Amino acid sequence: MVEKVKKRSAKAGLPPGVLVHVGTQKVTESRVHILDYDEQGVREKKRASLDECLPFRDSETMTWIDIEGLQDVGLLEGLGRCYGLHPLILEDILNTDQRPKSDDMEDYIYVVLKMLDFDPDSLEIVSEQVSIVFGRNFVISLQEGREGDLFEPLRQRIRNGQGRLRRFGPDYLAYSLLDTIIDHYFVILEKFAERIEKLEEELVSNPRPDTLQKIHRLKHEMIFLRKSAWPLRELVSKLEKSESDLIQPATKLFLRDIYDHAIHIVDSIESYREMLSSMLDIYLSSVSNRMNQVMKVLTIIATIFMPLTFLAGIYGMNFKHMPELGWPWGYPLVLVLMFALAGAMIYYFKKKNWL
Amino acid sequence: MVEKVKKRSAKAGLPPGVLVHVGTQKVTESRVHILDYDEQGVREKKRASLDECLPFRDSETMTWIDIEGLQDVGLLEGLGRCYGLHPLILEDILNTDQRPKSDDMEDYIYVVLKMLDFDPDSLEIVSEQVSIVFGRNFVISLQEGREGDLFEPLRQRIRNGQGRLRRFGPDYLAYSLLDTIIDHYFVILEKFAERIEKLEEELVSNPRPDTLQKIHRLKHEMIFLRKSAWPLRELVSKLEKSESDLIQPATKLFLRDIYDHAIHIVDSIESYREMLSSMLDIYLSSVSNRMNQVMKVLTIIATIFMPLTFLAGIYGMNFKHMPELGWPWGYPLVLVLMFALAGAMIYYFKKKNWL
Amino acid sequence: MVEKVKKRSAKAGLPPGVLVHVGTQKVTESRVHILDYDEQGVREKKRASLDECLPFRDSETMTWIDIEGLQDVGLLEGLGRCYGLHPLILEDILNTDQRPKSDDMEDYIYVVLKMLDFDPDSLEIVSEQVSIVFGRNFVISLQEGREGDLFEPLRQRIRNGQGRLRRFGPDYLAYSLLDTIIDHYFVILEKFAERIEKLEEELVSNPRPDTLQKIHRLKHEMIFLRKSAWPLRELVSKLEKSESDLIQPATKLFLRDIYDHAIHIVDSIESYREMLSSMLDIYLSSVSNRMNQVMKVLTIIATIFMPLTFLAGIYGMNFKHMPELGWPWGYPLVLVLMFALAGAMIYYFKKKNWL
Amino acid sequence: MVEKVKKRSAKAGLPPGVLVHVGTQKVTESRVHILDYDEQGVREKKRASLDECLPFRDSETMTWIDIEGLQDVGLLEGLGRCYGLHPLILEDILNTDQRPKSDDMEDYIYVVLKMLDFDPDSLEIVSEQVSIVFGRNFVISLQEGREGDLFEPLRQRIRNGQGRLRRFGPDYLAYSLLDTIIDHYFVILEKFAERIEKLEEELVSNPRPDTLQKIHRLKHEMIFLRKSAWPLRELVSKLEKSESDLIQPATKLFLRDIYDHAIHIVDSIESYREMLSSMLDIYLSSVSNRMNQVMKVLTIIATIFMPLTFLAGIYGMNFKHMPELGWPWGYPLVLVLMFALAGAMIYYFKKKNWL
Amino acid sequence: MVEKVKKRSAKAGLPPGVLVHVGTQKVTESRVHILDYDEQGVREKKRASLDECLPFRDSETMTWIDIEGLQDVGLLEGLGRCYGLHPLILEDILNTDQRPKSDDMEDYIYVVLKMLDFDPDSLEIVSEQVSIVFGRNFVISLQEGREGDLFEPLRQRIRNGQGRLRRFGPDYLAYSLLDTIIDHYFVILEKFAERIEKLEEELVSNPRPDTLQKIHRLKHEMIFLRKSAWPLRELVSKLEKSESDLIQPATKLFLRDIYDHAIHIVDSIESYREMLSSMLDIYLSSVSNRMNQVMKVLTIIATIFMPLTFLAGIYGMNFKHMPELGWPWGYPLVLVLMFALAGAMIYYFKKKNWL
Repeated sequence: MVEKVKKRSAKAGLPPGVLVHVGTQKVTESRVHILDYDEQGVREKKRASLDECLPFRDSETMTWIDIEGLQDVGLLEGLGRCYGLHPLILEDILNTDQRPKSDDMEDYIYVVLKMLDFDPDSLEIVSEQVSIVFGRNFVISLQEGREGDLFEPLRQRIRNGQGRLRRFGPDYLAYSLLDTIIDHYFVILEKFAERIEKLEEELVSNPRPDTLQKIHRLKHEMIFLRKSAWPLRELVSKLEKSESDLIQPATKLFLRDIYDHAIHIVDSIESYREMLSSMLDIYLSSVSNRMNQVMKVLTIIATIFMPLTFLAGIYGMNFKHMPELGWPWGYPLVLVLMFALAGAMIYYFKKKNWL
Repeated sequence: MVEKVKKRSAKAGLPPGVLVHVGTQKVTESRVHILDYDEQGVREKKRASLDECLPFRDSETMTWIDIEGLQDVGLLEGLGRCYGLHPLILEDILNTDQRPKSDDMEDYIYVVLKMLDFDPDSLEIVSEQVSIVFGRNFVISLQEGREGDLFEPLRQRIRNGQGRLRRFGPDYLAYSLLDTIIDHYFVILEKFAERIEKLEEELVSNPRPDTLQKIHRLKHEMIFLRKSAWPLRELVSKLEKSESDLIQPATKLFLRDIYDHAIHIVDSIESYREMLSSMLDIYLSSVSNRMNQVMKVLTIIATIFMPLTFLAGIYGMNFKHMPELGWPWGYPLVLVLMFALAGAMIYYFKKKNWL
Repeated sequence: MVEKVKKRSAKAGLPPGVLVHVGTQKVTESRVHILDYDEQGVREKKRASLDECLPFRDSETMTWIDIEGLQDVGLLEGLGRCYGLHPLILEDILNTDQRPKSDDMEDYIYVVLKMLDFDPDSLEIVSEQVSIVFGRNFVISLQEGREGDLFEPLRQRIRNGQGRLRRFGPDYLAYSLLDTIIDHYFVILEKFAERIEKLEEELVSNPRPDTLQKIHRLKHEMIFLRKSAWPLRELVSKLEKSESDLIQPATKLFLRDIYDHAIHIVDSIESYREMLSSMLDIYLSSVSNRMNQVMKVLTIIATIFMPLTFLAGIYGMNFKHMPELGWPWGYPLVLVLMFALAGAMIYYFKKKNWL
Repeated sequence: MVEKVKKRSAKAGLPPGVLVHVGTQKVTESRVHILDYDEQGVREKKRASLDECLPFRDSETMTWIDIEGLQDVGLLEGLGRCYGLHPLILEDILNTDQRPKSDDMEDYIYVVLKMLDFDPDSLEIVSEQVSIVFGRNFVISLQEGREGDLFEPLRQRIRNGQGRLRRFGPDYLAYSLLDTIIDHYFVILEKFAERIEKLEEELVSNPRPDTLQKIHRLKHEMIFLRKSAWPLRELVSKLEKSESDLIQPATKLFLRDIYDHAIHIVDSIESYREMLSSMLDIYLSSVSNRMNQVMKVLTIIATIFMPLTFLAGIYGMNFKHMPELGWPWGYPLVLVLMFALAGAMIYYFKKKNWL
Repeated sequence: MVEKVKKRSAKAGLPPGVLVHVGTQKVTESRVHILDYDEQGVREKKRASLDECLPFRDSETMTWIDIEGLQDVGLLEGLGRCYGLHPLILEDILNTDQRPKSDDMEDYIYVVLKMLDFDPDSLEIVSEQVSIVFGRNFVISLQEGREGDLFEPLRQRIRNGQGRLRRFGPDYLAYSLLDTIIDHYFVILEKFAERIEKLEEELVSNPRPDTLQKIHRLKHEMIFLRKSAWPLRELVSKLEKSESDLIQPATKLFLRDIYDHAIHIVDSIESYREMLSSMLDIYLSSVSNRMNQVMKVLTIIATIFMPLTFLAGIYGMNFKHMPELGWPWGYPLVLVLMFALAGAMIYYFKKKNWL
């Protein structure tokens, strides 16, 4: 889960604007999905080629180009040339180790952030970088490409013509994409909350060395999660306060809404972080407590049996002149003495609250 | 106590503005309580229906609509249409996992915060979300709906015509609602202080493994409390600095007062948090101290009896040629030697301050 | 020392501006002390009544009304009406659980802060709330009322006509009151420094379980102290930057001076806090070190005597065919072997630096 | 790795602007490399002398003077005089214990930062100070001088005439130098991430005292790394927001890009720092856990064998009247009793989850 | 090292502006050293009296009055009257427990800070307060007075007429004084770095209880050092941003230089602080590790010898019917059994990595 910056070093010596895909290939082929719509109707093209994208640039209608898989550098260069994207933006899109941010490039606005999901197999958080570029009449969204598609419900809404999507501009579509992604953070946080709750029960009822590992792993994921979520506030706030005329005043109200969500997410993460810290402290304390318990058992056993064994040792000596050995009541008396000694010890420990 | 974001994920895919009640149903039915008043008189309707609410919109008099229970989505939609509430505001009202905040919507101001209470049974803090919307001639307050009703004294004051409530506008009523809720935080903090004090005494006089759990639980609740109280400062400060003409200058003085309260609450929470941290440190230290004590007892016992038992073991050997065994004073001499050894040990421990 | 917010909850349901004395009664009766002065002369009235206060309002001379004991709510209401104090200010004066702050109310300025003292008996810090209200020709100071009177030297200076007090306005008197109170914080901090130094010596020379309690208590008081001192900076800074014409430019220079003091106090408190944290760490470490010492003694004893006892046990067995038992040199040989074994062990521990 | 401020004290008494080389000599001779270019062509001089630098000052073409090794103070003074550098700037260049910063000196801009690298032998981070001065038609870069040369690819690009370097001004060259250096931080961070990952595996699978040293060393390097990286944000931000006309608007876009990188680096360092802290906590906990394990073994052994040995001791006593000793089944019975006792103990420990 | 605020309380009740020397007398007599100079020449008076100071006030030449020892209150009052110093400034000069700060008093600027040095005997940091007052044609510097004199090199430079000192105004001399003092902080930090490095080696190679005390002492001094260094940033920044015409624009460049130094110092202190914290953690961990080691030795010894002793105990019982005792191979068999048992134990511990 240590963030893989590895591939990034491959770029260290290169001039800025050279396009190299940094990250792991998640799909074998870049898929392009075009959705062109206005209030009247919808035109859709699945698995489109670059040439099919270009004509939409000059149309009056809104165009949403969704690309899954970033390895087709030629496709991106073509799109970039067509929509006038700056080389640095293309570079950022391809570099999947990007810090979430939003950039106002005058003719278009560029947003990049992390889409989080739970891998149902490994139960780990998986992260996918999503770039969103929107201008006067287009939205381009670029995903690394995984199985699940969070954007399908949005497409469905556009096809149905429900809601505001068809009536509002590309800024509203971009907002809807952001909203979809950020809403999904709550799903992740819920899973987190469940795991923390479970761990807490385990901690109280039956802490094991294993528990420590689990706390550690959660802490680790939390650091990762925080790194993805923390910049969201700034990202959305920058959009909301932007003076670009690409963002309608009506949309800003919606952006303020996801700004509140972003703060809520960060707050929750901080709370969970504190809980995990507190759990580690509790774990350490309960280990100490347990050790105390073990030590007490040892001390009680030793304190009771050492004197008794010593006593038995005395009467096991082979001196010729030990008068007690000849007494008829010697043996029973010693036994009684031993019992008394043990009883006294136990009474002492009871009083000291060790038993 | 891990905040339940659970239901929230049910909304993850939905378009913004779709009204879904997020949270647990706390009452079986939404109750509407209307209080319409001006300086001359008061008109009151308990358990009113939506249709009874609407006529008050255009009256000159002040109208306070108090709703308990949020599950009647139709009622809210009706109210929203009547008073021109933005769909996002209605969504926030229904989503009871909201971060406290205030929004200036020009025609009305929206405030949402947490009302805290102690559950007398479980001794845990219970939290209820309260939304307050106020405009030129109305205040709408929306509670999730629990047994106790903190707002009844306010209603009584309106009915009696005492104080400023009848003379001042809806901003003053909204302030009074906020003041009532925030004042109740002090009640919670007092209960907290009592529990901390009790725990501290327990810590000093008789720390047990149980004490650790109690510190942990208090810390947990503190995190929750802080999450509710922290945003209050910003919320009130935003109202106080608002340039909206819905808030009279005279009322701002009162808002500054609850701003001071909000800071005071946050300060107190921070102090308690530090105390709890310090208590955990002390607990850990005292566990270590206790273990030290136990170890000393063990070491003293072992150090005294191991050499003695060894000595007894020597004279328990069956060598044929052990002259000491034949001496008439052999046995008493060995006993004296043993006592001397034990005495020397005890003297050594006394000097080392272990006894 | 957990701050007593208790009584505050009694106010939770009441409307704002209702006057209830929150806190413990510290004197049986409110004492009013009037000092009316100008450059020419001084008029003084001890134990004055409310009616005696009122005429001074319209005089040209400066009037300082000092009140000890806050339980006489009628007196305060009278004063408030006479000098036009806002109900919220009167409420704040009576609520002795107030966060230190300063409020500019146009016609007068309100300052509230904590006066700290050491209780010579319990060696604990005691805190008393002081409110200062000053306007164009008056200063009203309100104390909860304790034995010692920090303000007497000020009165003496006014009577003598020394220094600037008689020549400057009420802002300078208010500054002098603040200066007196804040200067006294240094006395408290010195006592603190002494206690920390003593504790540090104890920690180095002879740490005991008792030491832990002392660190804890100091930490506790430090939290309390910080809560009182922290808002002072903001309080004074607000006064210094105030644009009110109640504060002369010449006085602002003096306010800047106590602003520096306030920062100095906060700095010192932070330093002491860090020292206490560091001391707790050191204590924990030294407990661990001590336990290590104890464990080593135990281990050395056990490691030396267990093998020896085992050897003695072997020759204590009753087998018929044990040739060593018949050897004439068997016993001495075994003794020599035992000594050699013990010596080897001790050499080993010496080499391992355990002895 | 404690940063060596040592040599700096040699300067303590000297007047400002006196040029003394502070730091270790890393090459035996200062090497000067001149690259003069415009859109048409490139002129290059390796191992140039001071006199060869001067003529370029007044040429229209861009001049990049790269100096490796700072011990030739005369060379720097000459350059400084020629390009009008302020004595304080020359002093900062020579003092290799400089905090990264950028200064706008009107006629030129001065940037100083740390170039980091991994020493392949000692696996430690090595740091080299790089100063960059750029004006209207020149860039001077000054390195302490190590083996590897990060700037060679840039030179190659200039020679080839590829990309923007030949077309854009000295601000773009300066940006490219910064970009090269800051990009190299990612290489260092990757190495770090690898070492942390390895250490984490070691921590989970097989923690040793050695592991502790490794965590400590990484933490140490992290502190060093942070000290170098932290001021980068401010440095780049100051350049980006500079109103100097030495920086073209087009270049600012590129500066914003490395500003994002700088924030990303700082974020990553913070994440690693938290991971290291968390690892230390885990290490401590697992040491405690291990000790618990050891203690349990000891306690189990002692608890089983002490009572048995005591029993054997009883029947080893030499009393004349011990009827059990004569019973034919005495010995087997005692053996059975012993087995039963041991079994009971083991059952008890199983139930207590100690086995 | 707990900062001595003691004497300060002596001032608690006094009116502001009353001159009392707060601090310890470090020299027996106040020494006044006058250096009057302009570009043409220098006039110098050692051990001058007050009357000799006054004539310089109205001369055109620059005058530097350096005073060592603050106990001669009359001298200061005279100077204050002559140069028009505000009573609060004189008070601050005499109170040697001052927080570093700079105040712009229009006619002159007042700077107070701590000059640090290492006491070669006790190896502790000693601190001396230095006040600098400079106006249009004078600089007054006031030291508490110790042996070493950091300012002598400056005087020498003035006498020689080298550098800028004779040409520039009093602001440059004041800057030079500040620079001299702040440069000396680096000397202190170097000594610190050496001690930390040494301690770190000790920690890795051979940690002792003594090491803990050393870490504690260093931490203590660090807190003290930080308290002196932290306000330097603000102090210099205020000077640099001052709009007073007492500070020439040329000098501001130099002030920016020492501002960078001040930030560098604070950064270094923070780094050392973190290193010390980390060292304490490491110490605690290594103590735990060591205890683990000790426990393992104990457990191994006990686990090997307890069963063996028990076995020997069995055959030491005196039952009449113990057939093994009669077997000719009984004794050797038992010995073999014992060796096998011990071997098995050792093998088990080897496998568990305890040996």
